[in-house]
Amino acid sequence: MTVQKTSRELYEDYKAKMQKIADVRNAMAILSWDQETYLPEKGAGFRGQQLTTLSTIAHELFTEDALGTLLKELSSRSDLSATEQKNIALSLEDYEKQRKYPASFVAELSSATNAAYHAWIRARKENNFAVFEPLLSKMVALKRRETDILGYEAHPYDALLNEYEKGADVSMLDTIFRDVKESLLPLLQKIALQDAPDKQFLNRHYPKDAQWEFGLNLLKAMGYDFKAGRQDVSEHPFTTSFNPQDVRVTTRIDEQDLGNMTWSCIHEGGHALYEQGLPTEEYGLPCGEAASLGIHESQSRLWENNVGRSLIFWQHHYGKLQGIFRSSLQAVPLNDFYQAINLVQPSLIRTEADELTYHFHVMIRYEIEKGLIEGSLQTKDLRDTWNQYYLDYLQVEVPDDMKGVLQDIHWSHGSFGYFPTYSLGSFYAAQLFTTAKKQIPGLENAIASGAYGSLLQWLRENIHRYGRFYTSNELCEKVTSEKLNFRYFLEYAREKFGGIYQL
Amino acid sequence: MTVQKTSRELYEDYKAKMQKIADVRNAMAILSWDQETYLPEKGAGFRGQQLTTLSTIAHELFTEDALGTLLKELSSRSDLSATEQKNIALSLEDYEKQRKYPASFVAELSSATNAAYHAWIRARKENNFAVFEPLLSKMVALKRRETDILGYEAHPYDALLNEYEKGADVSMLDTIFRDVKESLLPLLQKIALQDAPDKQFLNRHYPKDAQWEFGLNLLKAMGYDFKAGRQDVSEHPFTTSFNPQDVRVTTRIDEQDLGNMTWSCIHEGGHALYEQGLPTEEYGLPCGEAASLGIHESQSRLWENNVGRSLIFWQHHYGKLQGIFRSSLQAVPLNDFYQAINLVQPSLIRTEADELTYHFHVMIRYEIEKGLIEGSLQTKDLRDTWNQYYLDYLQVEVPDDMKGVLQDIHWSHGSFGYFPTYSLGSFYAAQLFTTAKKQIPGLENAIASGAYGSLLQWLRENIHRYGRFYTSNELCEKVTSEKLNFRYFLEYAREKFGGIYQL
Repeated sequence: MTVQKTSRELYEDYKAKMQKIADVRNAMAILSWDQETYLPEKGAGFRGQQLTTLSTIAHELFTEDALGTLLKELSSRSDLSATEQKNIALSLEDYEKQRKYPASFVAELSSATNAAYHAWIRARKENNFAVFEPLLSKMVALKRRETDILGYEAHPYDALLNEYEKGADVSMLDTIFRDVKESLLPLLQKIALQDAPDKQFLNRHYPKDAQWEFGLNLLKAMGYDFKAGRQDVSEHPFTTSFNPQDVRVTTRIDEQDLGNMTWSCIHEGGHALYEQGLPTEEYGLPCGEAASLGIHESQSRLWENNVGRSLIFWQHHYGKLQGIFRSSLQAVPLNDFYQAINLVQPSLIRTEADELTYHFHVMIRYEIEKGLIEGSLQTKDLRDTWNQYYLDYLQVEVPDDMKGVLQDIHWSHGSFGYFPTYSLGSFYAAQLFTTAKKQIPGLENAIASGAYGSLLQWLRENIHRYGRFYTSNELCEKVTSEKLNFRYFLEYAREKFGGIYQL
Repeated sequence: MTVQKTSRELYEDYKAKMQKIADVRNAMAILSWDQETYLPEKGAGFRGQQLTTLSTIAHELFTEDALGTLLKELSSRSDLSATEQKNIALSLEDYEKQRKYPASFVAELSSATNAAYHAWIRARKENNFAVFEPLLSKMVALKRRETDILGYEAHPYDALLNEYEKGADVSMLDTIFRDVKESLLPLLQKIALQDAPDKQFLNRHYPKDAQWEFGLNLLKAMGYDFKAGRQDVSEHPFTTSFNPQDVRVTTRIDEQDLGNMTWSCIHEGGHALYEQGLPTEEYGLPCGEAASLGIHESQSRLWENNVGRSLIFWQHHYGKLQGIFRSSLQAVPLNDFYQAINLVQPSLIRTEADELTYHFHVMIRYEIEKGLIEGSLQTKDLRDTWNQYYLDYLQVEVPDDMKGVLQDIHWSHGSFGYFPTYSLGSFYAAQLFTTAKKQIPGLENAIASGAYGSLLQWLRENIHRYGRFYTSNELCEKVTSEKLNFRYFLEYAREKFGGIYQL
């Protein structure tokens, strides 16, 4: 019957099915957003059940035979636009991947994830990795089975990486993290010999409402559209999108730490600008989705670090900031502020790390995940391995599991292969920003005067509007004329921190 | 195959199906709540689409053959508890009703509703009923077809009433509204001869934040559980429930009108206490739902009027209120305040009407709906009929359509048969409250000292916990030992307003 339909008709059928699935998934995103922002305490139980139901419905809709038949038929049609063909190809790829999972495996993984998450919570309460270890061990076994289900060529971990960053693999990451070790370690060692700038003044009292207003103004200045979004408060800041016309950010405010709110606002703002820039007409289709986690992170990091921790950015904003928090900042010169917000100092917690040491946190997790998945590392040895890595790479002693191996939620969720995308994001950001500076006349002057329109327009045109049409590396090559190259980040780091620390 | 299953197993299958449907419907409620409270302007378009998708999914799940087969099989099982049997009977009734609608009719009604709603918005902008009339005419024709689809015995309007208030019919309402006319009109006429109390001081300046706090404290005092709910701001106050552990209210604050926020808080609080009191273990099943709109409204009105506009209620709260709004209220004695908040005065707008004239607004709508559905009134004559009724019953001249026939949203939504439940709510409230006063020792003293625990407990035990187990009238008879009887409202009105106006 489908054969008699025109490609146009079939494509409209496909679009309707995909948009229906997107509506259900976005409803889930709305329920999750509410869960993190406004849900009353007792509502958590039923909310979990409501999310599970929607998730099951979305899964059923996306794996039904009729969708597969339709996608296969459309794949053979040549009278579709390039974007349409790309949508079909990516949807078919996603569909076939979903269909690989036996129902029994999905159920087992779901219950293991639930158990692991609760064990992780308990382990954190007791500050004892041993409580989490048996569940993590089971999770690793399941993830190894998953690599067999998904299939891979060179390394089993590649199958998991592919979930978050299509095209990334162990061979690429080994090279990148070798570069990190070889080039960033010497830089860190040089920095360690210098006097650390003072940053105590960032921990003076910064009243909540004034911080909130300042954060909103930063978002406005960046070009975030408040008619297509809003900011709320949550325990952990995040960005969520229900469609490009409704992209929401959250922040948290610590009255004793100005930095917490400030860079989380800019970071989430970067994510949100990407989501607001995705093509509305591709709603529900792959070309309406972000390219990858790495590219998503490149957008947040570019704004947070390359722009938001630069001297020229604060040349414009610092006077206003001083005006708002007079008692805390009026005696602090811009340059002291700039140095304080760029303090490099090895530490224990990934999410609190500076721009440079951050990548050692990620590298450690990458090495561990690779070891667990290939079987060269066992979960029973994980705490020791973790602590040893922190000593070797960051020269810090891990005092307990909370500040060590239990600090991240990812493994309890079964998210293996996710961490590397954080570093890839920074490296893509440096490479993209280098190109942006070449291609946008007067970009640095614009930033120094608080005008980000040309940068946002460049990101919209070169990255946002393509959605998943290109993979990360295709996109990188298209925009910067070469594949991801760590040297851009290195040059950025040497120039910036060389200046700050007068190396 | 089902025959081999035990009743217990079948009942669990039924429960799982119903809870899945409830999860989808509650997800819709969450999306709708967000739409009225936090949705950014541009998000409206996709939100509409997302709601439509969820609605379609819920409808598909609730009308699938397998559910019907299961319900019929379970109806024949006698080894179920009374509550279980009631759930099955009500679900089968709901199912068979839904299955009566031809898909073509559902689609036609949905598109007519959409068109009528937008025409109503436009008509209001232009203050011209003629813009709305053709769409309303089509809507009435569809609702008349709906009465044929649903079936009825005595009067076609009964079929529509039954949607909102099972068991109510034209014969019952004709009797009640005859009583309203015969007994309330003389009371109104006597009141009209008295001097009207002054209420200007209610329109002094009442700062927003102080109103918000006062409203929250009223809700807390009533026993509303903020761990299972929250209050937000919306254009029109409403209560919504996602399950008994997450029942939310909204309010609006007008700094020039203290009454607006105060009684909307108490009113919505009454609705919310009902929802928080429904049995959690019946989630998704009929016995976990409210008995009817009339009973729902009885809960809000009992708190709003019988409790919240009583002298004893304000004996406790007025001192605090004066303390908060010192400059506006310190010179106003309690008795003046009490008279002002109970001012009886015929007016044009239903939602702003006092406790007595309110029922004439409802009666007018009831007469009009009955006429439209039975065909004795045409939409082209509706404006004149409306204006004439207002002159006859309330002695007010309708100056324009906005203040007349275009004031309510209900008809544009296709909600015919809804209005009468507002009056039924007040009449049930009076009858229930009379019984409560008899059965709860010291209730009036408790209220006078700000303690509502015994009242709430009585409502929980006699009404809330039953869900839909009893119809409105069954419940009324069970609790008060007689069917709905207008004389309780009349006695309440005569006593209260007789006192205020010294009749």
